[in-house]
Amino acid sequence: MTSTILRTDFEKSVAAYWNTHRNDPVNLRLGAVDDLYHHHYGVGPYDPTILDGPAEDREQRIIAELHRLESAQADLLLDHLGPVAPGDLVLDGGSGRGGTSIMANQRFGCEVDGVSISEYQVGFANEQAARRGIADKVRFHFRNMLETRLPGNTRQAIWTNETTMYVDLFDLYAEFARLLRFGGRYVCITGCANDVTGLRSKAVSRINEHYTCDIHPRSQYFKALAANGLVPINVVDLTAATIPYWELRARSEVATGIEESFLTAYREGSFHYLLIAADRI
Amino acid sequence: MTSTILRTDFEKSVAAYWNTHRNDPVNLRLGAVDDLYHHHYGVGPYDPTILDGPAEDREQRIIAELHRLESAQADLLLDHLGPVAPGDLVLDGGSGRGGTSIMANQRFGCEVDGVSISEYQVGFANEQAARRGIADKVRFHFRNMLETRLPGNTRQAIWTNETTMYVDLFDLYAEFARLLRFGGRYVCITGCANDVTGLRSKAVSRINEHYTCDIHPRSQYFKALAANGLVPINVVDLTAATIPYWELRARSEVATGIEESFLTAYREGSFHYLLIAADRI
Amino acid sequence: MTSTILRTDFEKSVAAYWNTHRNDPVNLRLGAVDDLYHHHYGVGPYDPTILDGPAEDREQRIIAELHRLESAQADLLLDHLGPVAPGDLVLDGGSGRGGTSIMANQRFGCEVDGVSISEYQVGFANEQAARRGIADKVRFHFRNMLETRLPGNTRQAIWTNETTMYVDLFDLYAEFARLLRFGGRYVCITGCANDVTGLRSKAVSRINEHYTCDIHPRSQYFKALAANGLVPINVVDLTAATIPYWELRARSEVATGIEESFLTAYREGSFHYLLIAADRI
Amino acid sequence: MTSTILRTDFEKSVAAYWNTHRNDPVNLRLGAVDDLYHHHYGVGPYDPTILDGPAEDREQRIIAELHRLESAQADLLLDHLGPVAPGDLVLDGGSGRGGTSIMANQRFGCEVDGVSISEYQVGFANEQAARRGIADKVRFHFRNMLETRLPGNTRQAIWTNETTMYVDLFDLYAEFARLLRFGGRYVCITGCANDVTGLRSKAVSRINEHYTCDIHPRSQYFKALAANGLVPINVVDLTAATIPYWELRARSEVATGIEESFLTAYREGSFHYLLIAADRI
Amino acid sequence: MTSTILRTDFEKSVAAYWNTHRNDPVNLRLGAVDDLYHHHYGVGPYDPTILDGPAEDREQRIIAELHRLESAQADLLLDHLGPVAPGDLVLDGGSGRGGTSIMANQRFGCEVDGVSISEYQVGFANEQAARRGIADKVRFHFRNMLETRLPGNTRQAIWTNETTMYVDLFDLYAEFARLLRFGGRYVCITGCANDVTGLRSKAVSRINEHYTCDIHPRSQYFKALAANGLVPINVVDLTAATIPYWELRARSEVATGIEESFLTAYREGSFHYLLIAADRI
Amino acid sequence: MTSTILRTDFEKSVAAYWNTHRNDPVNLRLGAVDDLYHHHYGVGPYDPTILDGPAEDREQRIIAELHRLESAQADLLLDHLGPVAPGDLVLDGGSGRGGTSIMANQRFGCEVDGVSISEYQVGFANEQAARRGIADKVRFHFRNMLETRLPGNTRQAIWTNETTMYVDLFDLYAEFARLLRFGGRYVCITGCANDVTGLRSKAVSRINEHYTCDIHPRSQYFKALAANGLVPINVVDLTAATIPYWELRARSEVATGIEESFLTAYREGSFHYLLIAADRI
Repeated sequence: MTSTILRTDFEKSVAAYWNTHRNDPVNLRLGAVDDLYHHHYGVGPYDPTILDGPAEDREQRIIAELHRLESAQADLLLDHLGPVAPGDLVLDGGSGRGGTSIMANQRFGCEVDGVSISEYQVGFANEQAARRGIADKVRFHFRNMLETRLPGNTRQAIWTNETTMYVDLFDLYAEFARLLRFGGRYVCITGCANDVTGLRSKAVSRINEHYTCDIHPRSQYFKALAANGLVPINVVDLTAATIPYWELRARSEVATGIEESFLTAYREGSFHYLLIAADRI
Repeated sequence: MTSTILRTDFEKSVAAYWNTHRNDPVNLRLGAVDDLYHHHYGVGPYDPTILDGPAEDREQRIIAELHRLESAQADLLLDHLGPVAPGDLVLDGGSGRGGTSIMANQRFGCEVDGVSISEYQVGFANEQAARRGIADKVRFHFRNMLETRLPGNTRQAIWTNETTMYVDLFDLYAEFARLLRFGGRYVCITGCANDVTGLRSKAVSRINEHYTCDIHPRSQYFKALAANGLVPINVVDLTAATIPYWELRARSEVATGIEESFLTAYREGSFHYLLIAADRI
Repeated sequence: MTSTILRTDFEKSVAAYWNTHRNDPVNLRLGAVDDLYHHHYGVGPYDPTILDGPAEDREQRIIAELHRLESAQADLLLDHLGPVAPGDLVLDGGSGRGGTSIMANQRFGCEVDGVSISEYQVGFANEQAARRGIADKVRFHFRNMLETRLPGNTRQAIWTNETTMYVDLFDLYAEFARLLRFGGRYVCITGCANDVTGLRSKAVSRINEHYTCDIHPRSQYFKALAANGLVPINVVDLTAATIPYWELRARSEVATGIEESFLTAYREGSFHYLLIAADRI
Repeated sequence: MTSTILRTDFEKSVAAYWNTHRNDPVNLRLGAVDDLYHHHYGVGPYDPTILDGPAEDREQRIIAELHRLESAQADLLLDHLGPVAPGDLVLDGGSGRGGTSIMANQRFGCEVDGVSISEYQVGFANEQAARRGIADKVRFHFRNMLETRLPGNTRQAIWTNETTMYVDLFDLYAEFARLLRFGGRYVCITGCANDVTGLRSKAVSRINEHYTCDIHPRSQYFKALAANGLVPINVVDLTAATIPYWELRARSEVATGIEESFLTAYREGSFHYLLIAADRI
Repeated sequence: MTSTILRTDFEKSVAAYWNTHRNDPVNLRLGAVDDLYHHHYGVGPYDPTILDGPAEDREQRIIAELHRLESAQADLLLDHLGPVAPGDLVLDGGSGRGGTSIMANQRFGCEVDGVSISEYQVGFANEQAARRGIADKVRFHFRNMLETRLPGNTRQAIWTNETTMYVDLFDLYAEFARLLRFGGRYVCITGCANDVTGLRSKAVSRINEHYTCDIHPRSQYFKALAANGLVPINVVDLTAATIPYWELRARSEVATGIEESFLTAYREGSFHYLLIAADRI
Repeated sequence: MTSTILRTDFEKSVAAYWNTHRNDPVNLRLGAVDDLYHHHYGVGPYDPTILDGPAEDREQRIIAELHRLESAQADLLLDHLGPVAPGDLVLDGGSGRGGTSIMANQRFGCEVDGVSISEYQVGFANEQAARRGIADKVRFHFRNMLETRLPGNTRQAIWTNETTMYVDLFDLYAEFARLLRFGGRYVCITGCANDVTGLRSKAVSRINEHYTCDIHPRSQYFKALAANGLVPINVVDLTAATIPYWELRARSEVATGIEESFLTAYREGSFHYLLIAADRI
């Protein structure tokens, strides 16, 4: 059965990456702050005073601040989700360790299905939901978001939080168009290559190699949305808002070495951090 | 020669409307405030204290405030135009009496070509440029923005300020794609029908009839942009920001009677006031 | 369940319009002539002698003549339906009070399903079928013609008699392509805007407002047909043939006030009355 | 220079066919009746009495009748050309020996350019125009209608009278869209394969072989029109109207042997004789 | 039930052709050599020495050699099928008398479903499978390959061996895309018209008439593949390799008369014999 | 003027790469063998005996062998160029130091224009042509192959030898379609990502970073060709044929460090080395 969830060598290597990178401190230590485990980046300025003060817990302050910025990013995403009622069903496409899904349930009371091709992450996230006593409302599935097997025309909202660089966008939005109710909302936060500076830069290729991913150009998002009845209502360039997160992370012990590639790519303009909110018609 | 600029009965009736509505106080009296004549609406909250104080110049205070909101809207549009250098060429598509064109020249020092199918407006706007001594930099042409006859690959930026409801968007963006340099910017502020509430509502039909225009659904904008190499970088829903303008205008002597249709359409959600900024690739 | 039939505010307002305009004499008094209740217009010249003669039953003669022209229009539509056998299934998309459906059953002996988003109309039409004893053959359903839930590949013929201005044509013809058998026939009679005169005129906007509808340009029909495997075999411009109907109706007591807008639109050429017959391939 | 007009082996063989079939009596003898030389077929019932009477000039009566039906066909085509003023320019795409071009000039007084890839036909047609003293108004060019080299946006009307089976329709209508003024009219009379009966039948293949042509399915016409901004306003199935012409021709001495293939194809329904009138938008 | 398998007159005439041409020696006598009955042509040089030697069994040597070349063609097709495991399911689209299906089972041990619209051929092929004791692995169905009713996402490989000239390629590849697993392989051997020499030549029309088929231009294959997620990995022009087969066949008693048309078409370059191998993505 | 040739930061960085990597021994030392300077890889097995024999000129033997394989690759490309006459014009898209251009002139006697965005390479290649006395026949231009400014409809053949990973394929093939005569030939040799294994692998991302390029998936080539009237006639998977070149190069002193990424990518199947020959229609 696994073989139909992981269709390609690429998907298998992505799954293997996340199944084996279980102990990356940048995810675990930040998640431990308040048990919301994220697999995305942050937005907003950091508090520079955390760099001052006693050295012994300086790293701890940085960790807490990075985590605050990541949760702020998830909150920003949820701000664009439109009205979601307690009985509504929503989907988290590429749900990682479940952080955003849990926050959505907390905010709206809605039911959440998260899907991920990392069997390890699915297990981890389901444990989180169980520990919070919301396993009946927030469920994580070992499934491919290109083929969720969820019933069509049922979702009031869907989001992808930095997961679209692992899939073909036309396939993805065809599946989301099938799942969303007429008038439902899709929100995407993603890094994307800037068509205006040309094809992918060296820095973007380094990020692709680091995460075994395949960052799309910005234009591809709008073509794939238009082809699948998803109409933007808000598009926000978050590039300037995410740079502080990377600057702080670069100074932290949890830095993974990819920080400079992100900072170079954002600063040279070859890469955007973008939020897109779109309606299903 | 006129006949090739005005190709259809529809265009002729639009031109006739603007050629003959020369004395609409909502345009003339507001423009007289500081000699920037606008043909678009405003954004931002109005100062409620203007409604207090002596009745004899209350209307004058309303006029000034409406004009301030309209100029704020034009400023917002120009904020999204990206870097424009003094030597750059830009285009104002549907330039009316020239207000936004003159503001662009003032801000960036760039050269502006404005086109309009109202021969009267073109004359009026050129007089304004002459009086300001910038006629060599800011030029208005009696031409159709679907066929500007300007040389291709020359424009650093193009905008349309509430003029796209008079034309086919695919034809328009094909022409703009021809004119813009690679990496150039297009900014659009427009009212558009909300696909999510269905086809055009009664209120939207009344606006169509009032202005002899043909308001497009939001989806049409994104399809036509995607088909012509124009990639959004910012999309802002200005609906809430424009309602105060209409509320104030409804209380003014320059109200034309269409105010209630706008307020109804915006409040029932069948109509958006949208800003789109997109890059030419 | 209603909520999934009426997906948008637009559809709700259309349904409300027809649910509440129950007593419009233009529909009821004409239908009473022979118990065929139409919700479309007529074609062919009227007999001018009906305007002569005694004043007391002049209006009655006009009513009968208008009704005759409407039935002639429905007959013309059925003339283009191709060979339909008694066992065949056909669909009336937007069936109103059921007039054309009943005529089709009378002519071909076929089974007819009519769908309408006006629950009132569905009830009225089903009563008509019951009274005629053909309820097993002619059925009306409270459903959206964009999503009929009828089994695919079953219909020998489908028609829409002046109902396409309430829906997106690409969605509609995708559903019809699903329903029609290979080689089945689709017939459409509709008013449409003339692309050649430009976008919708003031008169067309008035009609849109009056009926809460959204008249499509002619080009949209042929694009949507081509995209859905529906190939025209006959296209007839009925504009000249329908003008007499409106002229007569304008002189009648059942005039609703919209007559002048139709006459203006037809005469200025901004509006066509069109019949399209197309085959499913 | 010839080599750029005749781009393919197919075009060369078509040109060779018409350059060498100079003496086909079906064209020459009919043309000799009144010096209007046609290369298309006829419509309308023939007068059965011509078959009676003295045998010695029976064939002559048949010839005259066939010619009358062909001229009636050309008249029908011109009936759909819309208003054409004396100063207007029109194009005859695949002009043969010039019959329809001359009739258009006679009826409207307009200027006609005819193009053909048969150098022989161009010479013949120009001689006809010279003899009638209208060579300044009616001009024939040895050119490919896929690439006329005529200036764009200049034609009020264009027609093709049974010539589209020699070219790719998408290429053809792209060229016609370039040539036609906004709102200009295109009229096509053609035989086309019926998609509903499947792909081309044996009888249609025989016609293809006979004329070295490549008859398109009906669907291809409407796809190519829709892709090039050409919107139908009238479509007429002339199949029943053209069968008498073929029946009469089959009984004549000028029969070429292809008559039975046409009659079979028309009667079995695998082939249509179609008129399409469309507007350029 | 037959009526839904044979949807059009064209399909009915194709089925009738193959149902009644049961005794064509070119198929039966060649198949009798080793009980592999083919309905396609051959590739590779023939052994010229077979033409020498005793006249009494010269024809027998020719037959054996023609059959060898046809089997070589089927082998070449199977060479491009990629890795196929014993448990895999494959499809033979237009399976004729079953030759290639049986060879695929012999080579790979896979399960084969063959579909054909000739009920006679289906029966014949199933008898062959039964006689070889592989009826549980190799099954032939009286079905239309445009609508196989086989479950989606199940086929490791699909081929069409000279059968695509009977169907619309877009419809066909949509069905194949539905059936193939991600990464599955499609192989096509077909004759196709050469776009470069223009539309179909006389010789190609004669082949169309002979087989009641409708040979597609080469471009159509690549458009239809691209539109359906089928990506070429090998394309081989087999024209030169198939000419010897036709030259030998022309000298044989089993020649059907169509040999000269093939030889003319191939030699004049208006016709290709092409192999395409493509992956489903 | 440079600024319009180098439109994007990406193009500038590509140009900078090739302008500054002037002394890469892998290009210069191999080119010195016989003054044919290549910027592409090789095909075919290498002679294993070159690794034996005296150590002092072992490297020299490897260099000569690598150069032989690169020239073999260029010869293979030219084998697919179709008939090219001495008077014909051809284009080398991304001409590097001119090796393939000079070989084409030597073989066909045709005139060659090469374009490159590396001003240094253009100068180097023109010097080579001058030294050979063929500067009137073989010309190199500092231009972007997306916008060659060469006259349309003039090229009998165009090739790209490992240069398409630097540009958008749709833009490229639109330009090539403009330049090629009807029936002209395009040949591409390129590395491309394998859609079947998913998106780009880590190894492919490393190649992208190394060369500042952006390797396209295989599917993109066939979509872009189909969209621009370029129809494949031969597609050859050269992956197995190029692996020996990389194995030998990995053992040479001129190895640049990227060899292992190529070998990994080819062997794991995430990357193809592909030749495509296509005709302009």
